Amino acid sequence: MSEGQTQLAGVELIPENGSQPAAQGGFKMFNRIADWITSERMQVINVTDRINEIVRKSGIRDGLVHLQSLHTTTAIFINEWQDALLHDVKLFLDQIVCREHGWRHNDPQFSDCERKNADSHLRGMLMGQCLCLQVRNSAVLLGTWQSIILAEFDGPRSRSMSIQVSGI
Amino acid sequence: MSEGQTQLAGVELIPENGSQPAAQGGFKMFNRIADWITSERMQVINVTDRINEIVRKSGIRDGLVHLQSLHTTTAIFINEWQDALLHDVKLFLDQIVCREHGWRHNDPQFSDCERKNADSHLRGMLMGQCLCLQVRNSAVLLGTWQSIILAEFDGPRSRSMSIQVSGI
Amino acid sequence: MSEGQTQLAGVELIPENGSQPAAQGGFKMFNRIADWITSERMQVINVTDRINEIVRKSGIRDGLVHLQSLHTTTAIFINEWQDALLHDVKLFLDQIVCREHGWRHNDPQFSDCERKNADSHLRGMLMGQCLCLQVRNSAVLLGTWQSIILAEFDGPRSRSMSIQVSGI
Repeated sequence: MSEGQTQLAGVELIPENGSQPAAQGGFKMFNRIADWITSERMQVINVTDRINEIVRKSGIRDGLVHLQSLHTTTAIFINEWQDALLHDVKLFLDQIVCREHGWRHNDPQFSDCERKNADSHLRGMLMGQCLCLQVRNSAVLLGTWQSIILAEFDGPRSRSMSIQVSGI
Repeated sequence: MSEGQTQLAGVELIPENGSQPAAQGGFKMFNRIADWITSERMQVINVTDRINEIVRKSGIRDGLVHLQSLHTTTAIFINEWQDALLHDVKLFLDQIVCREHGWRHNDPQFSDCERKNADSHLRGMLMGQCLCLQVRNSAVLLGTWQSIILAEFDGPRSRSMSIQVSGI
Repeated sequence: MSEGQTQLAGVELIPENGSQPAAQGGFKMFNRIADWITSERMQVINVTDRINEIVRKSGIRDGLVHLQSLHTTTAIFINEWQDALLHDVKLFLDQIVCREHGWRHNDPQFSDCERKNADSHLRGMLMGQCLCLQVRNSAVLLGTWQSIILAEFDGPRSRSMSIQVSGI
């Protein structure tokens, strides 16, 4: 195990043996809603560039960016953006939640939902609609192979994501 | 794709081509512990109103609310609050993790746990005990169909959630 | 249901019927990268003490600590740290995503990935690479049985986690 100090221009970091906090400054916040139109029932969208553009616009250098999809039948998560893997991602999500399984949400006897989308709800619940990431040096902190993915589980629809950037 | 500017009273947002941050102000923080008594082994509880009440009390208008259940055999997540769907949620969680599967945590040869709750731990781990949401205009930001759900996987028990509201 | 006020030295909390925010103060931020060398293909590491040490060094008393593993084939989550249960955790993650399943990411016809690690990607996606926890009284807030676990799904490798502590 080893611990390194991050090297980022313009951020004062304390020495390993220091005791005062790294950076102080006026706390700022920036909010945006971004929308996407989806075209498939299950679809994955790479939103990394869009989020980075909003982070850059925010003028916030270091902090957090919180992403929240406003729909229960969607999800936001991280993975490598590679065609073959995205095929596997959709196959996995399709298999881990069966579309037909006697779900009550799809049964007119128990539910007034006409979309028959119990599977979409369960996929959205499993993967989550929120993602919080670090902002460093006016960009979203991501590893080399990490992309931010918005997943549609009940499209085609219009989908909104609320993006909040906060920090210094 | 299109990007809209959120319309929220009292929050200064910068124009699309602006460069200064949206809102600045004194950073504030508010902490609470909330408790629930559960009555079933697996149970879902709609905590949305309770969380909104705490956010309103905090006096914080815009920021984040972080929810953390303090127990490994519970979870916090988002879904639509509909009886038929909640039945499906419990069925799905029951099926994705078998109660009996030769789990070592339940085996006296390997474990001193007398609750035989390996399945509860695995469900809690899968769904997660933390949820972070945006606060906008003194309320939790949620889509029309999004409710905040506390799930009990090893009840009946007394359960505590730590709630932290921070922002401006 | 009952609601208690947290008892933490040095943090001003408002009375139940109050309206002013709990604590105000200069917002501070502290960033670190921590590294681990893993030794197994699937491995779990208890990083709780390491994170607590960084939180203590940050000088931040109350706020959030955000953990982000910078690799798609890893995850960060919470569970009890008990040998028998950790065996079950690995068994469960091994079973919920099959290693061989005709994944395209492992197929030279569709992918140039030579690590044949589609299963590792799917496990990392399912469990998530980010975890945000509360900081209270200069320590990570955790329930009695909650430990912070870094999971390796494609080791042995060198792995980095970015840790951001923010608050007052």
